[in-house]
Amino acid sequence: MTVRPTLYTCAGSRGLRATWAAEEAGVEVELKLLPFPPRFAAPEYLEINPLGTVPLLIDGEARMTESCAIAHYLATKDGYTDLAIAPGEPDYAAYCDFTYHADATITFPQTVFMRFALFEKDKGWEDAGHAYAKWFWKRLVKLEERLETREFLCGDRFTVADICCGYALILAERVGLDEGVPGALKAYRARLTAREGFKRAVERESAGPAAV
Amino acid sequence: MTVRPTLYTCAGSRGLRATWAAEEAGVEVELKLLPFPPRFAAPEYLEINPLGTVPLLIDGEARMTESCAIAHYLATKDGYTDLAIAPGEPDYAAYCDFTYHADATITFPQTVFMRFALFEKDKGWEDAGHAYAKWFWKRLVKLEERLETREFLCGDRFTVADICCGYALILAERVGLDEGVPGALKAYRARLTAREGFKRAVERESAGPAAV
Repeated sequence: MTVRPTLYTCAGSRGLRATWAAEEAGVEVELKLLPFPPRFAAPEYLEINPLGTVPLLIDGEARMTESCAIAHYLATKDGYTDLAIAPGEPDYAAYCDFTYHADATITFPQTVFMRFALFEKDKGWEDAGHAYAKWFWKRLVKLEERLETREFLCGDRFTVADICCGYALILAERVGLDEGVPGALKAYRARLTAREGFKRAVERESAGPAAV
Repeated sequence: MTVRPTLYTCAGSRGLRATWAAEEAGVEVELKLLPFPPRFAAPEYLEINPLGTVPLLIDGEARMTESCAIAHYLATKDGYTDLAIAPGEPDYAAYCDFTYHADATITFPQTVFMRFALFEKDKGWEDAGHAYAKWFWKRLVKLEERLETREFLCGDRFTVADICCGYALILAERVGLDEGVPGALKAYRARLTAREGFKRAVERESAGPAAV
């Protein structure tokens, strides 16, 4: 008996990487949409995910909470698909690198900006938030260089690396950080969000509570 | 002709994950040790890595800058070794998840703490740094739960997931964040740092400029 994995997420959150990867990989997931932020708006969620973060993927015994890990997992769990780059393929190193780069280097500074310059403005740390906005813009150099001569990040095709890094660029637009995003990366983002798989993912997430 | 990969790093930085993984995997790397922070202390480094960050792994055409990606890559580039968990193995999902969790959730808050509460204390954002210290401690719950019944994170053996998350705990001790680290995680860290592979990595890094 095969049971569909269950994906808990909030519309428009980092979990969009997982919803999107499921659509692109053709993996059926049961979507459970939560209000944001779930640790306050749906405190019973803490019983199944003590971190209180989204997304959470439950697949049999497995419980995953990292959006880039989930996207990569959905593309490889039954063996490597074309959405991932396998060991031995050209660009395997780049594929690994960009899937980690997405959160470790270009999403986290945006979350610091969001906290200090948007959500907790009243605490007097707004400039500390803006310091991380600058930090974010400077770190886009790696994506920019890579995409100078490429349509997608790795292997001449759309992969999970694009889902992982693409979400960081989608977030930048949403939270008001687009002024420092180079035009070439905005064009890349437009290519990604024009995909049918992306549109289906957004459509699925729109069935739940309002977006983040 | 096989050329050894070259690893640029600073002693004790996140690059320790890469040095350590190379030792555990038995992959010979040429180590280039830089003074910290390289973007000021060795500005010529920016020509080979415009991000200015360490580590940087150069392996043929490949150039990688994410420490967790490099560790995973060294353990899988010629096919999956026992240091990684392959698709289809039990704990594959957990392995993916913890290798991303290490930077995306439990290292980044420490870097915000370091910046605001240690390196740039004079800017008046010290409390903003301490807010991320608390954030870090709360997010340790996932590691703590996982290790309640396990010696290592995945697959009943030492893997790159331990290298990735272990470094975050090593960093916590080094930067003064140990007060909120549970005893069980300190014991786990002690198991990891007692390994011969870890000791060899630290020894190799000690040949260069002083540790971070």
